[in-house]
Amino acid sequence: MSAKKKGLQSVVFLNPPRLASWASIVGPKEGEGPWGNSFDVKTSDYLLGEQTWEKAESKLLQETITLAMSKTGLGVDAAEVLLAGDLMNQIISASFAARTINIPFLGLYGACSTMAEALIVGAMLVDGGFYQRVIAATSSHHYSAERQFRFPVEQGVQRSPSAQWTATASGAVVLEAGGTGPKITAVTVGKIVDMGQSDANNMGAAMAPAAADTIKMHFADMEILPDHYDLIITGDLGSIGAALLKQLFVRDGLVPLPNYSDCGMLLYDEKQDVHAGASGCGCSAAMLCGPLLAKMQRGELNKLLFVGTGALLSPTTSLQGESIPCIAHAAAIENL
Amino acid sequence: MSAKKKGLQSVVFLNPPRLASWASIVGPKEGEGPWGNSFDVKTSDYLLGEQTWEKAESKLLQETITLAMSKTGLGVDAAEVLLAGDLMNQIISASFAARTINIPFLGLYGACSTMAEALIVGAMLVDGGFYQRVIAATSSHHYSAERQFRFPVEQGVQRSPSAQWTATASGAVVLEAGGTGPKITAVTVGKIVDMGQSDANNMGAAMAPAAADTIKMHFADMEILPDHYDLIITGDLGSIGAALLKQLFVRDGLVPLPNYSDCGMLLYDEKQDVHAGASGCGCSAAMLCGPLLAKMQRGELNKLLFVGTGALLSPTTSLQGESIPCIAHAAAIENL
Repeated sequence: MSAKKKGLQSVVFLNPPRLASWASIVGPKEGEGPWGNSFDVKTSDYLLGEQTWEKAESKLLQETITLAMSKTGLGVDAAEVLLAGDLMNQIISASFAARTINIPFLGLYGACSTMAEALIVGAMLVDGGFYQRVIAATSSHHYSAERQFRFPVEQGVQRSPSAQWTATASGAVVLEAGGTGPKITAVTVGKIVDMGQSDANNMGAAMAPAAADTIKMHFADMEILPDHYDLIITGDLGSIGAALLKQLFVRDGLVPLPNYSDCGMLLYDEKQDVHAGASGCGCSAAMLCGPLLAKMQRGELNKLLFVGTGALLSPTTSLQGESIPCIAHAAAIENL
Repeated sequence: MSAKKKGLQSVVFLNPPRLASWASIVGPKEGEGPWGNSFDVKTSDYLLGEQTWEKAESKLLQETITLAMSKTGLGVDAAEVLLAGDLMNQIISASFAARTINIPFLGLYGACSTMAEALIVGAMLVDGGFYQRVIAATSSHHYSAERQFRFPVEQGVQRSPSAQWTATASGAVVLEAGGTGPKITAVTVGKIVDMGQSDANNMGAAMAPAAADTIKMHFADMEILPDHYDLIITGDLGSIGAALLKQLFVRDGLVPLPNYSDCGMLLYDEKQDVHAGASGCGCSAAMLCGPLLAKMQRGELNKLLFVGTGALLSPTTSLQGESIPCIAHAAAIENL
């Protein structure tokens, strides 16, 4: 086994990379939610001055990356590589943002687990001694995602009660070698879990078993108890998926029951009528880069397990009758 | 600067990961091409027994990964992580292959540069001390790609003279720490280059400047001359892109002119009427995992610079009038 591998699917860093800075930008609806004041920027315009939803999303991501880097006091070109992806076909939000950012770029796709995936790969590239400073980032946009995956919002199609609201949101983290601040201490890379659920309007239920699988594996690999973390937070299971995950914690014998929440349940208020909660790459990314890391900085949270959850379907696979392969990746972020 | 970073965009490995085994599977047309006998498997059926082109592509990728691992004498679960991506929306070929392969999975998207990207990230994760054995893999399928990006082949739309033929092909490499065999010694991660070309039917021309940028950077970073390599091979520039790249070599002062070829020009014979050559993630992946690595194994090639080239457009960005952001990633593979 490699020096840094621990257990079957986890890695412990020898020199845990530091989250040197981070930024979050959200859309109008997210800004009106319960955590609205915890994000760096609340946009008032879903188009961000662009002509299309897709261009708006790419601009959202690009501005978030630039803002995160500006907080380091350095220009964006002081980052050595950008790790980013998004939900759009051919990850165009990330690729077109990378065109403007103009640093070496590695595109990722993990659906809504992309922020966790980018943090994991980024932390490995820093701890591995390849880079001093990398950026991990992702985005989603309600209007670009809905028209690609379901229906154009303008069409006014009634949403299923189990549907989640794709967030207009973006998060970016600058990872650095050395220094002080919250650090990524360990990660668990997930396997695909597919329990045969094929309802693309109930992705929380599809993703919950993947989250359970990765979280259970994390504790087994790391040989720690569920109360090790102040908070275990999943990406976007929403109310249905989170309820299922809590049942799976019991099934998996995770006692004491973990301190658990889900970004998809936190981003919006119930009064905002989003049905089963929030989803989208930007949901967990903005919650991490907004309220969660702020709480870590203030010492209100010291040990966070950030579990990105992704439903790796496409409209084509759904139309071809396939069930939904899901994945979850976990990154332990700790104040050391 | 990090210990392993060299120059602006390159990394030199301290313990170069070994290409322990590899496999390539191609479709009927690729099997009839000049290198047909150099691939492990030539399929006779574009559907591989599946009901749809998309399911066929995923099966192609899954079988290639399994074959590459079987050559190590180990089961596929002896690999610790799968790094894979493809051209399909939401990289469904890779995700659904990963569902069957059932090992930890990190999804990548670099369009047709995905094989190079997977090799680069894979080599970093092995040299970084996180894993002993990882798989880097990708695929493309003529019928799934054409109907997603252009028109269903069955529609019989006339192809532009500058169009390239998306290959039905897949390649997988098993990277290991230690041992003997060809090794990845250094890599250069590319930036987006977009010269304003917006013709999605001439991707070779769009990608050539990105290839030139990364190759020039590689030589500058590594402080070596262009004749260092027995062969520099780009992914899928095709005849138009490769001709442009040769002009850019001259412009960039790369003398002596490198020993250069392009997988997109090699995969098919001129008589196969593919216009400007081959393209697709599987083009460079299968050429690498078929004839090129076989030549390295026989000692006919000892120093290869493998330069994956990707056009990071989508049909949506083209319809919205965007030009094509392109990228190239280089991996130096050497018999040590």
